[in-house]
Amino acid sequence: MHRLPLGPLYYEYSRHNEVRLRIEPGEKVLVEAEDAFSGQVRTNQDRRDRKAMPYGNPQTGPIYVNGAQPGDTLGVQIHEIRPSIGQCATRTSDPKQLAEWIGTDCPHGTHVCPIRDGKIYWSDEITIPYRPMLGCIGTAPDTGVPTTGPAGPHGGNMDIIETGPGSTVYLPVYVPGAYLYLGDAHAAMGHGELSASGLEMPSETIITVDLIRGKTIPGPRIESAEEIMTVATGCPMERATAQAYAWLILWMEEEYGWDRWKAYDLLTHVGRISVGYYAIGTVAAKIAKRYLV
Amino acid sequence: MHRLPLGPLYYEYSRHNEVRLRIEPGEKVLVEAEDAFSGQVRTNQDRRDRKAMPYGNPQTGPIYVNGAQPGDTLGVQIHEIRPSIGQCATRTSDPKQLAEWIGTDCPHGTHVCPIRDGKIYWSDEITIPYRPMLGCIGTAPDTGVPTTGPAGPHGGNMDIIETGPGSTVYLPVYVPGAYLYLGDAHAAMGHGELSASGLEMPSETIITVDLIRGKTIPGPRIESAEEIMTVATGCPMERATAQAYAWLILWMEEEYGWDRWKAYDLLTHVGRISVGYYAIGTVAAKIAKRYLV
Amino acid sequence: MHRLPLGPLYYEYSRHNEVRLRIEPGEKVLVEAEDAFSGQVRTNQDRRDRKAMPYGNPQTGPIYVNGAQPGDTLGVQIHEIRPSIGQCATRTSDPKQLAEWIGTDCPHGTHVCPIRDGKIYWSDEITIPYRPMLGCIGTAPDTGVPTTGPAGPHGGNMDIIETGPGSTVYLPVYVPGAYLYLGDAHAAMGHGELSASGLEMPSETIITVDLIRGKTIPGPRIESAEEIMTVATGCPMERATAQAYAWLILWMEEEYGWDRWKAYDLLTHVGRISVGYYAIGTVAAKIAKRYLV
Amino acid sequence: MHRLPLGPLYYEYSRHNEVRLRIEPGEKVLVEAEDAFSGQVRTNQDRRDRKAMPYGNPQTGPIYVNGAQPGDTLGVQIHEIRPSIGQCATRTSDPKQLAEWIGTDCPHGTHVCPIRDGKIYWSDEITIPYRPMLGCIGTAPDTGVPTTGPAGPHGGNMDIIETGPGSTVYLPVYVPGAYLYLGDAHAAMGHGELSASGLEMPSETIITVDLIRGKTIPGPRIESAEEIMTVATGCPMERATAQAYAWLILWMEEEYGWDRWKAYDLLTHVGRISVGYYAIGTVAAKIAKRYLV
Repeated sequence: MHRLPLGPLYYEYSRHNEVRLRIEPGEKVLVEAEDAFSGQVRTNQDRRDRKAMPYGNPQTGPIYVNGAQPGDTLGVQIHEIRPSIGQCATRTSDPKQLAEWIGTDCPHGTHVCPIRDGKIYWSDEITIPYRPMLGCIGTAPDTGVPTTGPAGPHGGNMDIIETGPGSTVYLPVYVPGAYLYLGDAHAAMGHGELSASGLEMPSETIITVDLIRGKTIPGPRIESAEEIMTVATGCPMERATAQAYAWLILWMEEEYGWDRWKAYDLLTHVGRISVGYYAIGTVAAKIAKRYLV
Repeated sequence: MHRLPLGPLYYEYSRHNEVRLRIEPGEKVLVEAEDAFSGQVRTNQDRRDRKAMPYGNPQTGPIYVNGAQPGDTLGVQIHEIRPSIGQCATRTSDPKQLAEWIGTDCPHGTHVCPIRDGKIYWSDEITIPYRPMLGCIGTAPDTGVPTTGPAGPHGGNMDIIETGPGSTVYLPVYVPGAYLYLGDAHAAMGHGELSASGLEMPSETIITVDLIRGKTIPGPRIESAEEIMTVATGCPMERATAQAYAWLILWMEEEYGWDRWKAYDLLTHVGRISVGYYAIGTVAAKIAKRYLV
Repeated sequence: MHRLPLGPLYYEYSRHNEVRLRIEPGEKVLVEAEDAFSGQVRTNQDRRDRKAMPYGNPQTGPIYVNGAQPGDTLGVQIHEIRPSIGQCATRTSDPKQLAEWIGTDCPHGTHVCPIRDGKIYWSDEITIPYRPMLGCIGTAPDTGVPTTGPAGPHGGNMDIIETGPGSTVYLPVYVPGAYLYLGDAHAAMGHGELSASGLEMPSETIITVDLIRGKTIPGPRIESAEEIMTVATGCPMERATAQAYAWLILWMEEEYGWDRWKAYDLLTHVGRISVGYYAIGTVAAKIAKRYLV
Repeated sequence: MHRLPLGPLYYEYSRHNEVRLRIEPGEKVLVEAEDAFSGQVRTNQDRRDRKAMPYGNPQTGPIYVNGAQPGDTLGVQIHEIRPSIGQCATRTSDPKQLAEWIGTDCPHGTHVCPIRDGKIYWSDEITIPYRPMLGCIGTAPDTGVPTTGPAGPHGGNMDIIETGPGSTVYLPVYVPGAYLYLGDAHAAMGHGELSASGLEMPSETIITVDLIRGKTIPGPRIESAEEIMTVATGCPMERATAQAYAWLILWMEEEYGWDRWKAYDLLTHVGRISVGYYAIGTVAAKIAKRYLV
């Protein structure tokens, strides 16, 4: 297994960065990543300092996958996501999207939560099950360099809770070598990531990166033990929802032999939506695998 | 138990309609309702005839709740939702929201699905668990008369899958007697109700209608066995999501003694979203009751 | 000329209200209307009291047009809009849509502006040309009763600045007699009606109401001296813009003999958009008549 | 006057490209640019070939402005925009945003329009006044590299019709030298750029580039002979409209000494909106300079 230690913090999915690791398809890698706060919050007293570090969600990468060519697809199996320092941290801040209903006198709300025995100690009374996921994972586009703020066809800041251990994330390859990046691990996350700060943790993620040659996908796909799902981003979320479902229909047609109109009908009755970071309209449309037969 | 048999099909949540049943708070009622197609689709050969019946989602009601006054809240416990004729029906039609990705040559797709032994027979190979819910339930506003197309603070066409047996739906009272309506039962439904036609069935719904005097709520709330949730509607869905979460925070504050900013923080990590009919941006924001202690 | 004096203030486009005036097609009417504040603001000291009067934009009507049948179209020529009391009033309040950028400590900002010699005296230094328009004009739908808050296919709270003297507003007829309502005059208005309170004035509007039998339109149309335009409402405004342009294309095809694709092309180069009340996404798509030949 | 001849076609506002011209603040430059079709459409028989060239709106640049530092502002005066080859071209294609209302059997609609004597010969019968403008103008961000598809705080594909001769466009400087790009000239354009293809022309644009040191602006500003305006982009357009107006208020406060709440009030009555490419929600909020005194 390769190990990609923490290095420069990248805030873009860029083909211009120097490659940090070259692997063969099918190889396993342990990737160290800083948390979404760029490590600025390690104690309850720490504050997010936007002057010193205006961007969020630093990525580790790029990983160059030998032989990956534009038009191929990466399949990134996530085996494990571990907290690097046994804790995660979160903060609240001015809830501008909710200000109309709950006001704006929000305390900074930085707090650190220990992680032990599969539990996150959010407060003295409340523990949350440890259900880690990657907020960000993506490849580098061939035109345009997305920041780690939004998500897009390249992946990026999707914040889909199903991006966790046991899942495989499929991503389009746009440039030779694919240039894979990941980061922004959360110890757990709610649909929508309401305050925009999850339970952010520096992380060690173990992945296997497969290459599916000659297979082209229009945007990210995720397969978990129970479900397959497609991820779309865009505003309004109504449109992202339509697009994610349309992409799921096309996946069912293309790989599972479904008639698209029957898939369209069935999803009306059994489809599920998993909402990512809501303010940028990222959603996953899902179907249980048991229906795909 | 009262029985409210099928009567005139109403397509509005109107205070102008003649009352069909008067009950005391706490009484139980069995309500018969036609399906969302106004009964036009009973066999695979039937078609939705929009000339004869341009509107959808006919409602049964109004039920007048004695003593209900503007500013009060109804609590409608749903005990059971039964298929009246042992089947449901669905149809596909021009998928205008998805046309960009999957085209427009959609066959009409009317088909009837028998319901037996807790299963919906969608095709020869595929059965779907019977998980009935009410697409529509609402009270009459004091100004404006919403149709049964959209949802709103009065309830209406929310299409939230949690509106089923075991749940209590809380609705604002705007006019004396509340004027409760319900209909549009689905034998099962996916998030978003993709094609806009669920597994539509004529139904018998058994409810108990409680009255919470002097309690004013800003929009629909639902309590299931495991969760509490608030429903907001509006476009873009990003805003409805924000509003639903804000209302959930205020509910946690008001009835469970939570500090609003701590609720805001916690929901970031454990909140869930249930998407109703996606094209009109209806969503429910939820939290598991075990966190409310 | 008929005169319809101020009467009950209606806050709905309702077919349930008692008719206040019956006219023949082609007749002229002077309509008195209260301002959008229901007359609560007559001096700089007055405040909008939402407890006493929660709704805005009271309408005068309904006017019953003899012979008007569902499927017909009304053509309402606006000849003149006069201030009833020689002044208008406006107010600012919590700018919730703009709070993110400019904060929330907005003073109430009620002020009354005299109207004289074709000018509105907004302050000691600044006068604004008197360019009156009707914020609201609409007919009663046959299902659903819209409030005077939003706009829709029936017209309603469109807030399009071209709805003024010299223009003809075309509205669909949904119920026998059409049930025409109008109100919410502004002495002048900016695109978008930013603060939601224009230069509101009690008004006398002189109109001629024509009836176009057998002509069915999908939503409001306006013809001014120089332009024709179609009005669409909905969120996101991107969609309303698309819909308004599509309706304009269909109008060009149907009445001016244009090929729809050529109209689509031409509008790309010469079309104009007039934004109504922006928060509800009302827009008019326009073309200069000189291109229609 | 410098001359920047046509060179590599860039489809990104990138700080990674090699500088093509270095100028001192206040210098004049003639910039040659290819049309939005990358020159693929020169005759009525030509077609846009997306396989050969998937991107649109190629830019000429970057221009390095000596001394420009992050936090400064460029002021780009546009003196003249000339057609390089005496013609422009447009095309229609599948109107996916309008398909719901007008269908999808749109002919390709490529056609070339001669430009002579201040007129564009759109057809045998119809001429359109020559009112040239730049669809795209922008600087390079320091993080992220936007493509020439959308607009943003850096400028980009704004498609605001006021970006023409006589106007000055103010743009934020994010990287040393600013890295100015421009292109995508239109011989004329309607609000919204309905079909997404304006009257596209290869162009020669004469500009003077001024540098305002120590002046930081949050996004593009435009000053024409009669008006000042701010440009915001984002979906839904309702939000972009709010943001553009908010930025205009702040500009009035900061440079013209207005109280922000009085500006907020005044814009309600006299503000105007100019809609850019509607599908990505770009709008300019405007006020006539005569009110600014």
